[in-house]
Order: sequence, then structure tokens, then C-alpha cells
Amino acid sequence: MIPTISAFEHSPDGGRGQARDMRVRWALEEVGQPYEVRLVSFSMMTEPAHLALQTFGQIPTYEEGDLALFESGAFVFHITEQHPGLLPVDKIIRARAIAWMFAALNTMEPPTVELEMSRLMGYDKTWFKERQPMLENLVCVRLRELSNRLADAE
Amino acid sequence: MIPTISAFEHSPDGGRGQARDMRVRWALEEVGQPYEVRLVSFSMMTEPAHLALQTFGQIPTYEEGDLALFESGAFVFHITEQHPGLLPVDKIIRARAIAWMFAALNTMEPPTVELEMSRLMGYDKTWFKERQPMLENLVCVRLRELSNRLADAE
Repeated sequence: MIPTISAFEHSPDGGRGQARDMRVRWALEEVGQPYEVRLVSFSMMTEPAHLALQTFGQIPTYEEGDLALFESGAFVFHITEQHPGLLPVDKIIRARAIAWMFAALNTMEPPTVELEMSRLMGYDKTWFKERQPMLENLVCVRLRELSNRLADAE
Repeated sequence: MIPTISAFEHSPDGGRGQARDMRVRWALEEVGQPYEVRLVSFSMMTEPAHLALQTFGQIPTYEEGDLALFESGAFVFHITEQHPGLLPVDKIIRARAIAWMFAALNTMEPPTVELEMSRLMGYDKTWFKERQPMLENLVCVRLRELSNRLADAE
């Protein structure tokens, strides 16, 4: 069954993976799973047909036969369960790999998204110039912690 | 094997579940799994012993024999894999339940944490009074979308 994901129709890259569809495309490409892409406009994302697939009116969505999912993390995890090779087999190492998946979504992504959203949507705020370096610093702190861990693991 | 989680020693509730340890305690209590709690101070959280368990210097951590995990979402998922009853057995319904787990962490939590962090740490900023209602609105938007979905599901 060929899955279909959705992506932005009008993003600067024309929905070719610079948004949250990237991680899903990446996982599908890694396992050699063909997939189809349905591009959606910002107005389509507010319509009932899209909200039925994506409660929060976002992209990507994932449809595969009777299965309709939202949340890109859930798609990636679903792909790991369907295809060998993305997660380790050893139970303890697998649990740790899953922990890093959550870290990517729940610890690394939020400050990164906050910085980007401020840059894209908040540049007209009176506090933009003073606040932006603080947001950049939060991202740098996380990246430094991650880098320290990777150095320890070498 | 009795797992040990860590929690804040000096939070207003004395580490009894009002931080990200709540979701882990909740899952453990649901399946009747006893657990131990190690309280850590803010200075302990910056020390190498803690950073070896939690790359980003946060709580909770989860230790169970040879397994040491970080990221509360990963603990909850690990508990669902060890104990029946938390996730549905049917594959499609299970995948959808997992999607909601990611939604809680990756869609509902970030604006909620941003609002709370602003309230706790950002009250002295010049932009606090003007920005706080915007943050409250972002949380309300997500809660409304969630509420609409739950109403549809009835």
C-alpha cells in the first residue's frame, strides 16, 4: 500500500521537504518505500476535510489504506515498525534510539521552531530586536548540550 | 526490576508530580508498577553524573537495571511496551493512540510550556504585559482545536 503524505503547496520550496514533511520523506526514502504527495494550500488546511485528518490544521498528514495519522513523529515511528533497519533490534538500544526520537521532537524542535516563528511572524513586534538574540541563545544552548553528548559518545 | 525516576527537589510541590515526572508517574501507577523517586537539586542537574543520564540537564530520568533513558515521552512509551493495557492491541487504533501521544508532546506541550516559562521567568521583561495575552491565545487555539476534535468524536 503506497502511503500519501501532504505538504505545503505555497511554501518557498513548493512543498519539497523544508517543513515537517522532511522527516517523513527521509524515513520513507531510507527504507525505499514509494509514497505520494498531496500539496495543500493554506486555505485548504482550515477546511473540514483537512481538519478530519489533522486536528490542528497542519501538515503533514499520512494516509495508508484504512490508516490515517497525524503528527510527523508518529509517522516516522509507524514507518520504523513496518520496515526493518531504522531502529536497532536490541531492546535496550532500541529504547534509547526511541528516546532520541522524542528528544528531537520535544527538546530540540520547540526552541528551534520558536526562533523561526519569531523570525517569520514576529519581526514587526517592538520587542523583536531585543528578544531574538535570547531565542538564538536558547537554540545554541541545546545544540551545545547535544554536541557535548556526541563528543562524549565518540 | 523496580525503575527509579528523578524529580525536582526544590519545586513548589517538592517533586511530587507537577513537572514532567507527572506523565511518567501516571503511566506507572496505571499499570501498577512500583517505582522509586530520586529528588535532584538544580545544582545537581548541572553535574556530570546527571548529564550522563540526561543530556539536557532536565528531569525526569528513568533507570531500570541496564536501561537508562531520558525524555518523558520515551519513558511512557517504554512502559506501554512492558505492560499491557495502556495502548490498544489493534494495529490501526494503536498507531492512532501513539499519534495522540506525539500530539500531546509536540503540539500541545510547546505553547503551554512557552506560556508558563514566560510567566515564571519573563515577568521582568518590558514586553511581558503585551506579549502574555498572545501566548495565552496560542494555548487557547490549540485547546479549542482539541475540543472540536473531541466533540466530533462523541
